[in-house]
Amino acid sequence: MLPKPHIVNLPVYQPGKPIEEVKRELGLQEVIKLASNENPYGCSPRVRAAIESELANISLYPDGSAAELTEVLAGHHGVNRDQIIFGCGSDEIIALIARAFFLPGDETVMADATFSVYKSNADIEGAVSIEVPLLDGTHDLDAMLGKIGAKTKVVWVCNPNNPTGTIVSDCELKSFLDQVPDHVLVVLDEAYAEYVTDPEYSDGIKLLSKYPNLIVLRTFSKIYGLASLRIGYGIGQPGVIKLINQVREPFNTSRIAQAAAKASIIDHGFVADCRAKNRDGILYLNEQFDRLQLPYFPAHGNFIMVDVKTPAVEIFQSLLKLGVIVRAGFPKYRNHIRVTVGSTDQNAKFIAALENVLSEQGARV
Amino acid sequence: MLPKPHIVNLPVYQPGKPIEEVKRELGLQEVIKLASNENPYGCSPRVRAAIESELANISLYPDGSAAELTEVLAGHHGVNRDQIIFGCGSDEIIALIARAFFLPGDETVMADATFSVYKSNADIEGAVSIEVPLLDGTHDLDAMLGKIGAKTKVVWVCNPNNPTGTIVSDCELKSFLDQVPDHVLVVLDEAYAEYVTDPEYSDGIKLLSKYPNLIVLRTFSKIYGLASLRIGYGIGQPGVIKLINQVREPFNTSRIAQAAAKASIIDHGFVADCRAKNRDGILYLNEQFDRLQLPYFPAHGNFIMVDVKTPAVEIFQSLLKLGVIVRAGFPKYRNHIRVTVGSTDQNAKFIAALENVLSEQGARV
Repeated sequence: MLPKPHIVNLPVYQPGKPIEEVKRELGLQEVIKLASNENPYGCSPRVRAAIESELANISLYPDGSAAELTEVLAGHHGVNRDQIIFGCGSDEIIALIARAFFLPGDETVMADATFSVYKSNADIEGAVSIEVPLLDGTHDLDAMLGKIGAKTKVVWVCNPNNPTGTIVSDCELKSFLDQVPDHVLVVLDEAYAEYVTDPEYSDGIKLLSKYPNLIVLRTFSKIYGLASLRIGYGIGQPGVIKLINQVREPFNTSRIAQAAAKASIIDHGFVADCRAKNRDGILYLNEQFDRLQLPYFPAHGNFIMVDVKTPAVEIFQSLLKLGVIVRAGFPKYRNHIRVTVGSTDQNAKFIAALENVLSEQGARV
Repeated sequence: MLPKPHIVNLPVYQPGKPIEEVKRELGLQEVIKLASNENPYGCSPRVRAAIESELANISLYPDGSAAELTEVLAGHHGVNRDQIIFGCGSDEIIALIARAFFLPGDETVMADATFSVYKSNADIEGAVSIEVPLLDGTHDLDAMLGKIGAKTKVVWVCNPNNPTGTIVSDCELKSFLDQVPDHVLVVLDEAYAEYVTDPEYSDGIKLLSKYPNLIVLRTFSKIYGLASLRIGYGIGQPGVIKLINQVREPFNTSRIAQAAAKASIIDHGFVADCRAKNRDGILYLNEQFDRLQLPYFPAHGNFIMVDVKTPAVEIFQSLLKLGVIVRAGFPKYRNHIRVTVGSTDQNAKFIAALENVLSEQGARV
């Protein structure tokens, strides 16, 4: 068989260990997962009824155009219906953009470190990823501009950035967009937008009317707490959305996901409550990291990247034995772990475990 | 912006009219949809409990490797776990195969007419689709062999074939597979396999041990009645599955779809019951078509393609006004409609409406 030569040696994604497996392997009663930036408060209480209303329709194909959800979301964001495309998570929108734009040898510019799915999809298409180091954990937009050339098809800006949690300001972003050549698509990934409280943060959707080469990605997996259902979306000018729609499979989101998203988007109270609790969690964790004298990046999403001053993979393993799953193994940040902001109780347990691990580590040195 | 030039003018999928819209536009109380080959008997009664068991986990990412479902399915089919890949419907497996194999200018061989998603995905990748006319509505495997050359990456065999409903026999298929060069991947799409009762039909999964360049596609959207949840799968030798996994997004199926599929696969009674009722429906519809002197292709799935001896698009419109949605508009079969085998009641209503439409048509001529 003759697959595309450049995909043969790509790594297969290695999923994280499920909570149940960690419990079994380590003989633990309780395991806290703060590794995937999931919402510790679940999802809107309206979701259950929305899902139940679809149980009679399980055997029927979903509306491939998600017309009802599109209408609600267009109203929510003040955009037109033809400006929205849904995906099986915003992951799929990233894949669709790669599939619509990249031919082998094309170039694409992104930060290092940022969300790994941009590069993995460029790799699949044979495009060359030009990775621009972060500056103090933040996108270096000027350096990224300097890497844009005639072969550049797409530039990715993750705001807040995963894994560092930092943001670029409205002002910095506009200056960047003013200088990006018209032929380059700018993907502004705002998966964590609804968590941000900093007034310097830009609502990318408001920038769409000025920048026709911009697309904003959002998701229902984070603050809306629908990660299990796989639904995210892109918003752009109709011309951009039409291009991406041309490479979308007809039925890429489920009836249940569409119904749950429709119920979630209008529950402003749930979102506001999660945002406030997350803010409190960030403040608590920042205080604790200060007390433990651990530097951290300013967190704007629902996760914090903290410098544990020792190989993070060891801290990860030690925390795992205490029943706390975090994320480590970032090539550019070997001494950093990324921890999701959990509930008050989860945060306190994480800090206790971390303190325990660090003091043992100190004793060993 | 610079999308791949060959995707710019691809058609955007036009979804069929929802039942509710047809009711509203035409002022109808009752509308029967026999257009999408959905299961008229819904899904296994075990599915509801399976979905409800996941309602507490909505905010948590699914297991990207679908480990539990993989184990159950591997046992069901007598294959190893590393021989299975899941997709957001088998549509997504088709897209993943295209993404893993095709570079612009590659060739791919398929029947004409067959499932349109093979060609649409080849188009997206810039591959050239060589479409080989059906012979009496059936794959012409010899002619397809004759079109395989050095540039051929993938050959598609849809069995039963959508839209004609015909099958190729075990004997014909083995002879074909014996002659396909090793460098060509053969995709055997068996979306309707569980409906087939003809002893000449091949279970493609049993052929995998002999043909390492074969992959079999199955789906939970048809006899299992889970179309709304978007889950299908591919089975092949581990080397083929690994290649396709390399272009899969990590979380492409939902928790609810995985749970529902796991509950469905073991409900052999539901499947056997649907198969028997479908067989009765085919016999009834065949009798009626004979009475109306309308030729039809031998149906092996849950749909029949029948020659209405007049432009099918007109019959489609006339049936729509009577509240029956079927499928027409097949470029190679302009006088044929494709109708899903419904429940006893739906089939009778369809035949009454068709007879009504045809006699009016006759009166006008």
